[in-house]
Amino acid sequence: MNSQRVLNITTTLITRIPCGGSQFPARMASSGAEKLLNMQNINPNVLTMEYAVRGPIVIRAVELEKELAKGVKKPFKNVIKANIGDAHAMGQKPITFIREVFLYKILSCLSNPSLMDKGIYADDVVDHAKTILGDCGGHSAGAYSQSVGVDIIRKHVADYIKRRDGGIPSDPENILLSGGASESIRNVLKLFINRKASKPAGVMIPIPQYPLYSATVEEYGLGQVGYYLDEDNGWALDVEELERALKEHECKFDVRVLCVINPGNPTGQVLSEKNIEEIIRFAYKHRLFLMADEVYQDNIYGEGCAFHSFKKVMCSMGEPYSKMELASFHSTSKGYMGECGMRGGYVEVMNMCPEVYTQFKKMISAKLCSTVLGQAVVDCVVNPPRKGDPSYDRWVSEKNAVLGSLKERAKLVQEAYSSVKGIECNPVQGAMYAFPKITLPPKAIEKAKAMGKPADVYYAMELLESTGICIVPGSGFGQRPGTYHFRTTILPQPAVMKDMLERFTAFHTKFIRENS
Amino acid sequence: MNSQRVLNITTTLITRIPCGGSQFPARMASSGAEKLLNMQNINPNVLTMEYAVRGPIVIRAVELEKELAKGVKKPFKNVIKANIGDAHAMGQKPITFIREVFLYKILSCLSNPSLMDKGIYADDVVDHAKTILGDCGGHSAGAYSQSVGVDIIRKHVADYIKRRDGGIPSDPENILLSGGASESIRNVLKLFINRKASKPAGVMIPIPQYPLYSATVEEYGLGQVGYYLDEDNGWALDVEELERALKEHECKFDVRVLCVINPGNPTGQVLSEKNIEEIIRFAYKHRLFLMADEVYQDNIYGEGCAFHSFKKVMCSMGEPYSKMELASFHSTSKGYMGECGMRGGYVEVMNMCPEVYTQFKKMISAKLCSTVLGQAVVDCVVNPPRKGDPSYDRWVSEKNAVLGSLKERAKLVQEAYSSVKGIECNPVQGAMYAFPKITLPPKAIEKAKAMGKPADVYYAMELLESTGICIVPGSGFGQRPGTYHFRTTILPQPAVMKDMLERFTAFHTKFIRENS
Repeated sequence: MNSQRVLNITTTLITRIPCGGSQFPARMASSGAEKLLNMQNINPNVLTMEYAVRGPIVIRAVELEKELAKGVKKPFKNVIKANIGDAHAMGQKPITFIREVFLYKILSCLSNPSLMDKGIYADDVVDHAKTILGDCGGHSAGAYSQSVGVDIIRKHVADYIKRRDGGIPSDPENILLSGGASESIRNVLKLFINRKASKPAGVMIPIPQYPLYSATVEEYGLGQVGYYLDEDNGWALDVEELERALKEHECKFDVRVLCVINPGNPTGQVLSEKNIEEIIRFAYKHRLFLMADEVYQDNIYGEGCAFHSFKKVMCSMGEPYSKMELASFHSTSKGYMGECGMRGGYVEVMNMCPEVYTQFKKMISAKLCSTVLGQAVVDCVVNPPRKGDPSYDRWVSEKNAVLGSLKERAKLVQEAYSSVKGIECNPVQGAMYAFPKITLPPKAIEKAKAMGKPADVYYAMELLESTGICIVPGSGFGQRPGTYHFRTTILPQPAVMKDMLERFTAFHTKFIRENS
Repeated sequence: MNSQRVLNITTTLITRIPCGGSQFPARMASSGAEKLLNMQNINPNVLTMEYAVRGPIVIRAVELEKELAKGVKKPFKNVIKANIGDAHAMGQKPITFIREVFLYKILSCLSNPSLMDKGIYADDVVDHAKTILGDCGGHSAGAYSQSVGVDIIRKHVADYIKRRDGGIPSDPENILLSGGASESIRNVLKLFINRKASKPAGVMIPIPQYPLYSATVEEYGLGQVGYYLDEDNGWALDVEELERALKEHECKFDVRVLCVINPGNPTGQVLSEKNIEEIIRFAYKHRLFLMADEVYQDNIYGEGCAFHSFKKVMCSMGEPYSKMELASFHSTSKGYMGECGMRGGYVEVMNMCPEVYTQFKKMISAKLCSTVLGQAVVDCVVNPPRKGDPSYDRWVSEKNAVLGSLKERAKLVQEAYSSVKGIECNPVQGAMYAFPKITLPPKAIEKAKAMGKPADVYYAMELLESTGICIVPGSGFGQRPGTYHFRTTILPQPAVMKDMLERFTAFHTKFIRENS
């Protein structure tokens, strides 16, 4: 066959062309050595999106771990991963109530319902599992749940929110369960994409921010409207700066969304009630849809700090504020639980236009549903023991121990970094991170420039290669031009933390000396 | 405060404007009665995407169920949901090996590792759980896994694929685990979005197709290039038709992807090896990235039919075909397992440009990871008992019983529908669906037109309201203009199936009579 012969000749000719650089017409056949999907024609937004929390530094850290395991000599014995809020991976013990008392029994009943008739588990466990299965198709966790989640679990979440907010009602119909909070955040942002609009929708996000936001905004082709947090003022969120940022970007984007992370990630500040009121007024004035990332709502350490949900503040302000559109996110991954791998999360949607909400539910239905077992983990987290329950005292003491230890480490980290010359670190009032500022000598900045790298990336890579400490450079979160930072978690256990801070101080002193 | 007063006046004025219709300037404050996110400014691709499997008919079916539960009188006693491939929801019993022998023990150990030291479970179960936990951060299922999935489970999947394909090697590095196959399919399609390109990338999908494809193509702003399956020829996939469809759409789209669903959904055909070879040659000739949706690979019923994976056929054809780019998808949701709610799935990616693959992994890292427990379900499904294992005989017999019963129902459904006047139904060679063609009388078509509905939607709604049978109209999957179909699953248990077919026949006869 003639065309086949032509193909074969072509094949021979182009065998050596790498996949990165096609100069061939789009419809010309190749050997496969020249790839159909290549770096020239891949989704450009995928190319430009960055998710630093799992970026190149972290990939190198994993390689180093593997090298160490193979016996390769390094100037350190182990890698310390302070890059991600992954509590269990950093040695935090799961809560006994969740794991040993409740969850595994519920999961066992969900995955093997025959256990429920065998008298193995207490009646309350069996009843609870039966209640969940009663809302599952065919009474099986193997059936798809509703796309919004299992009804009874949505109700339990609503009850939990109502207790959290001092009795302000929460409607289960407004709760949508998802595989972690990230999925919900991405789902809500997706509603604002409009390829046909003259200007993309602008999304206000803090600088520094959690890179899920910048990555998603970039992936979706939305407009990033960064507002700076005030580092000199403990990373405060200043409404004047919101006004400035909005004004600066209004010509380029149709600014429609305001994202607030409270407690802050990577910055650790906790917003006061008064500050939240101002932010709500700002959003009202400028007709911005509010997204409140409140996944660290249990992680409050600062003296005099307390968590106030946007919903509670909005409701207590009365109309018109109480009627504003808001999406608030929570997760099983953070808090004292740290159940990241279970992928449990939800969004509570307030005052959304009913027709839009119908469209939203239609949109997520194409993904069918989030994991029923992950939903069961959410159920467990929002159903902790109550006073009088046999597990109550132990649960309280473990919860307090985890949060107390995080509070100590928050203080330890801030004090340790602040004591190093050339480093400034704000107090960590909440969440799981510190975001210290490093003053880098001009020589280091020049070196990095010559290598085509941001100076903080160069610094972080040097730190990793010299000490095994894996942190994330500030450029992955955003920072004021000319300033350099890094994000470190406060999750390493106390002994590891001490080791980490010693390694860090020695490295930093040497780095500054060598580059001065 | 002056501006506040203005706001309040505005509030009073606009209270009655519904959220669907804003006539206010973009930055004018409102009471919240006029919504910020409304039907005019929501993502237009969300508005236009449709996912019929959970569309309006299904929503009405759920309402009817609730009405029945409340005691409302209906012309039927129960709703029969034949709309979705959700086996457990339709009464299929989970496989004993998966649920009672293996999975719940593994899940128990993963969620409560202290059980592993208590001598409760056999050594092989404990060893297996320890192997999985050994690849989890901090040895906890509560830690994020790698975004690509837990390494050892990726290896088990690769072993499974190698056994399936008669020894053709599978590299664990090419396996990416996800929360169901849908997520993987959406991830791969995302790589082809290019907002900056002059023409969107075209994606060839069958007509009729599983609406995940049309919904995702629409949501992503890609170009849908439909190729008709040959209904007169048992829904065969004809390469001439592929050529025609490609040619027709080339001016409008940069056609880059060919999706094939084998066994077919909703059409149930099983492709022969020869047919797959032709399709591969077509894709090669036209430089199309192949996506093979093979989630029904265990569901083969037709005499003389066998499942051939695209990968196996491609590899056995030798170069250049064996070097083509391919993504093949599988799931725990279908087959004989039907574990939909567990959300386990994966893609095997072949011959992808390494730099693109790195970008792909970066892209999915922003979603962190799929559920570790769902990954454990994948692990369980790809590790069935081997000959000689104590559970082997029972596993084989249950697997055969499920698939044998589905085979009988496939035949029963086809025969029953074919025997009704005005209905034609191709044999169901595989998967879980029949897609019969209905000849609707002109009067019914006129009635539907007057109501602004496609005629098959009108028919399906009438069927639901009269009989409680929930099927999905053919327009949700695509069909040749002027023809009408519906998709029904073959999942109702035999007694329910008999009941359904009786209700259906009575309805159809009456419907035709009344509309003739």
